[in-house]
Amino acid sequence: MRVWVRPAFLYLCRMASIKPSVPKGTRDFSPAEMAKRNFIFDTIKGVFRKYGYQQIETPSMENLSTLTGKYGDEGDKLIFKILDSGDVIEKTDIAKLLSKNETNDWANIQPIGLKEIFGGFTTKSLLKQISEKALRYDLTVPFARYVVQHQNEITFPFKRFQVQPVWRADRPQKGRYREFYQCDADVVGSPSLLNEAEFIIIYDEALCLLGLKDFSIKINNRKILSGIAQVIDKHDNIIDMTVAIDKLDKIGFDGVVKELLERGFRQEDIDTIKPIILLEGSNDEKLNSLRAALQNSEIGLRGCDEIQTVFDYVAACKPLTAKLELDITLARGLNYYTGAIFEVKTNEVAMGSIGGGGRYDDLTGMFGLKGLTGAGISFGADRIYDVLEELNLFPQSAEQSTQVLICCFDEQGEKYGLPLLQSLRSQNTSAELYPAGAKIKKQMEYANNKQIPYTVLIGSDEMESGLLTFKNMENGEQEKLSVNDILKRVKK
Amino acid sequence: MRVWVRPAFLYLCRMASIKPSVPKGTRDFSPAEMAKRNFIFDTIKGVFRKYGYQQIETPSMENLSTLTGKYGDEGDKLIFKILDSGDVIEKTDIAKLLSKNETNDWANIQPIGLKEIFGGFTTKSLLKQISEKALRYDLTVPFARYVVQHQNEITFPFKRFQVQPVWRADRPQKGRYREFYQCDADVVGSPSLLNEAEFIIIYDEALCLLGLKDFSIKINNRKILSGIAQVIDKHDNIIDMTVAIDKLDKIGFDGVVKELLERGFRQEDIDTIKPIILLEGSNDEKLNSLRAALQNSEIGLRGCDEIQTVFDYVAACKPLTAKLELDITLARGLNYYTGAIFEVKTNEVAMGSIGGGGRYDDLTGMFGLKGLTGAGISFGADRIYDVLEELNLFPQSAEQSTQVLICCFDEQGEKYGLPLLQSLRSQNTSAELYPAGAKIKKQMEYANNKQIPYTVLIGSDEMESGLLTFKNMENGEQEKLSVNDILKRVKK
Repeated sequence: MRVWVRPAFLYLCRMASIKPSVPKGTRDFSPAEMAKRNFIFDTIKGVFRKYGYQQIETPSMENLSTLTGKYGDEGDKLIFKILDSGDVIEKTDIAKLLSKNETNDWANIQPIGLKEIFGGFTTKSLLKQISEKALRYDLTVPFARYVVQHQNEITFPFKRFQVQPVWRADRPQKGRYREFYQCDADVVGSPSLLNEAEFIIIYDEALCLLGLKDFSIKINNRKILSGIAQVIDKHDNIIDMTVAIDKLDKIGFDGVVKELLERGFRQEDIDTIKPIILLEGSNDEKLNSLRAALQNSEIGLRGCDEIQTVFDYVAACKPLTAKLELDITLARGLNYYTGAIFEVKTNEVAMGSIGGGGRYDDLTGMFGLKGLTGAGISFGADRIYDVLEELNLFPQSAEQSTQVLICCFDEQGEKYGLPLLQSLRSQNTSAELYPAGAKIKKQMEYANNKQIPYTVLIGSDEMESGLLTFKNMENGEQEKLSVNDILKRVKK
Repeated sequence: MRVWVRPAFLYLCRMASIKPSVPKGTRDFSPAEMAKRNFIFDTIKGVFRKYGYQQIETPSMENLSTLTGKYGDEGDKLIFKILDSGDVIEKTDIAKLLSKNETNDWANIQPIGLKEIFGGFTTKSLLKQISEKALRYDLTVPFARYVVQHQNEITFPFKRFQVQPVWRADRPQKGRYREFYQCDADVVGSPSLLNEAEFIIIYDEALCLLGLKDFSIKINNRKILSGIAQVIDKHDNIIDMTVAIDKLDKIGFDGVVKELLERGFRQEDIDTIKPIILLEGSNDEKLNSLRAALQNSEIGLRGCDEIQTVFDYVAACKPLTAKLELDITLARGLNYYTGAIFEVKTNEVAMGSIGGGGRYDDLTGMFGLKGLTGAGISFGADRIYDVLEELNLFPQSAEQSTQVLICCFDEQGEKYGLPLLQSLRSQNTSAELYPAGAKIKKQMEYANNKQIPYTVLIGSDEMESGLLTFKNMENGEQEKLSVNDILKRVKK
C-alpha cells in the first residue's frame, strides 16, 4: 500500500512545486523594473506635455473590423482575437446537425481536434462567428479611429500622445514581446513643417533628459525618394532601390551596383543616381548634391525644400545634442509616409532604432475622413530601457520608494515610533514602520533589499533619552538624533 | 442607368459616413478625461508610495489555467478568452473528418453557425484547443500568481500596488464597463494589524487629497461574523444572516426578524442576536455590546480584539477626516476574507462603495504557497471619478496642458516667436506656437478649447516695439510685455 501511495504523494508534491508562469512573450514588471520604466515614461510624457501634446487612451479591444485589413496580410495574422464570451458556445445544445454524422462517435472525434472540424470553413466566416473583437495591434489605427469617431469634439490641429500596451501574436524571441508598450505622439490637421521640427526637438530633449549623450536623428523625405525614382523612370521600384542603397556601408558601391542590376535597374539608371548613392558631407552639401541630381523632378525638389525648412525651424529653436542627419537610405514605413521620415539611433550601444516616425497624408481615410494630414513619432521604450541599463543611466533615486524605515525591538518601541512615522508622512517623506515582532537583522535586510536609504532604531535607551539611532544605510554611519532633527534631515 | 447608379452612390456615401465605434462596454478617454483620471490615479499612487507600497505590473493576458476556477462559476463565464492566433485555424486543411458527413453541403451548413457545430463538445475541452490565454479578470489573482512565481526574489512583507485595466464579459450597463481600471494595494507576509490601520489612513489621506470632505470607512471582521454564527450554532448561514441584518435600515427590526425566520433561523436564535442586530452607539459602545453578546465565542472575541487594536493604531497615528464605523452588517468578500473587512462610501453623493478590501489568510494557497497572510484595499476609480465630477472637485489645473499659446499673423511673426517659444520651454513652461497661416480667431478658439490660460500675439507693431500683446484668456485682459516679462509672468 505504501509503495502505491508514495509515487502519488511525490506527484502531488511536484504539482505543488510547479510554479505558475506567464504566457510566453509576456512579462511581469517588478518594483525595481517599474521604477525604471516609470522614469522613462514620465520623462517622455513630460516632454510631450511641454510641447502641447495631450494624453488620450483607447480601449484595449477594438472591433475586429476596425483592425483587419490595416496591417497587411502578415499583420492581420498577428492580431490577437478575443472570444465573444464563454456563453456563445456554452449555451447551445445541438448535435442536430451532427446527428447526420455517420459515426457520431464523439469520444473518437474529440481528440482529433478543432482543426479538423474547421476544415470546410473559411477562416474569416468562422472567426466572425466566434470573435468580433481583437486586442489593439498598435496605437496608430485606434488613434485614426478615435479622430474620426470624435471629429466633432476635437479641436484641430489635434496634438495627442498615447502610452499604452499593444499585443502581437509574433513568435517570441529575445527583445520581442507579445505585449509591449508603445509611446506615440501625433498631430493631425496641421501641414506645417514646424511640427516635424518640433518632433526632432522632442526626441532631442527627451533622450537628453534620459541621459543619452551620443545619438543620431536621421531624417528623409518620401518626396525625395519619389524624385529619385522619377529621374530614372522607376516609380514602382523605390523600395528595391532603397534596400540596395541602404547596404552601401556593408557591400560598398560596387556591391550596390551589382544588386541594383540584379533588381532590374539599367546601367544608365545607376549612372544617373550615382551622385545620390554616394551622397556625402554635411546636410547642406547633401542637399545641394540632391538638388542637382533631382533638378528635373518637381516632387524631388519639393522634398529637398521640405527638409531644408525643417532644418531652418530647428536651427531657429535651439542647438541639438543629437546629430541631425539627412539619410536618403531611410525608408521605414514607405507604404504610408508621404513626407518626412524619421529614425533615431543611439551611437553608444549597438541597438536597432530607438524611435521613428513621419508624416502621413491619409491616416483617417481608412475610416472615411479624407484629406486630414498628420505626422507622428514613436519612442521604443523597451529598447531605451535596455540602452539605459547597459549605460547605467538610471538615476538611483528612481528605484527608491521608501525614504525612512523605523525599526523597533518590541511593541513599546512600535508605539513610540508611530508618531514619528506619521510626522514623516505629514511632511511628505515616504516612511514605513516595520511591525513589532521581527529581529532587527531581518528589518535591516528589508531596508537593504528595498534600497531604503535611512533607518531609525528605537530601543529602550532611545526611548529613555529621546535621542533615536539614525542610520545611513549607504555608508553605515550612525548618530543619535532627536525626532525633530530626523524630520529635518530627511526632508527633501 | 442613372436610376440604378444612384442608390449605389447613396449607399457608398452612407457607408463612408458610418462612424467607427468601440466595442460595447469599452470607452475612449479624451484629453480632458485623461487629465482628470490622471489626477485621481496620481493622487492615489502618491499616497501608496508614501506608505511604502511599490508598483508592479503583470501581463494583460494570463494562462487560462491561472484564472479559471478562481472566481466561481459565474466569474469564470465572464473571463475574456483569447484565441491562440489566427494560425491555429488557418493552417489546417482537412474536411477528412467531415467527408464522412452525409450531406457535405457546406453552403447550407455554414449559416447554421458555430453553436450547432460545437453541440457535442464540452466547452472546456473545446476551449482548451483554441484558447490557452485570457484577459486579466482582476488584479488579485495575478498578484497571487506573481508572489508565488517570484517568491525567491521578493522581500517579505511585500507591499505592492498595481493600477491596471481588467476585463469582464459582463452585460454592459450604466456605470459598468467591460474594461475598467483597478487600483489595488496589498501587503503579504505580515500579520500585523498595523497594516489594517494604515489602509484606513491611506483611504483617509487619498480621499481628502481628492477633495472629499464627508465619507465613511466601514470596518467589520470576519471573526465577529463567525462568532455570531457560533453563538447560535449556525456556522453555515452567516451569509443569510448578514444579508438579512443588512436590510435593517430599509425594513426595520420586524422586517429583519421576518426574513430571518423565513431563512430558517429560530426565534431563540433571534433573541440571542437581537442586541447584535440592534447594535448602536459609538464604536466603543458597539464593541462593548458585541463582547457581551459574543462572550461564549472565542473567535468572536478575537474579532472584537482585532478591531480594537486597529482602532488603537489609527488613534496613535492621526485624527481622521473619515467617519470610521464598526459595521457588523458589512459582509463583502465573505468567501475569502478571514479578518478585517473594509468598505468606503461617500456621504456627499448617492453612490455605491468607492473602495473596499480586507485580510485574507490564504491568497497564494491556490498556487501552492500556503500560509502566507495578506491584506489589501482597492479604490473604485470610475466611481470616484463620477463623485468628483458631480461635486465639481477636479482642480482646474488638472485639465490645463499648454500654459502659453503664441499666435502670429504671418511667417514673419512665426519666425519672431520661435525664440520666445523655446525660452518658455527651457524654463519648463509648456507652450505652443500656432503655425503661421491661420486666422487669429481660429487661434483664439484653439486656445479656448484647449483651456490655455495665456496667449501672446505677435503682429507688426509688436515686432517693431519688442512689446508683445499678452492676453489672459480667462478675464480677457491684455497688456504689452517684453519677452523677459512674459517669461517671468508665466513661470511657475
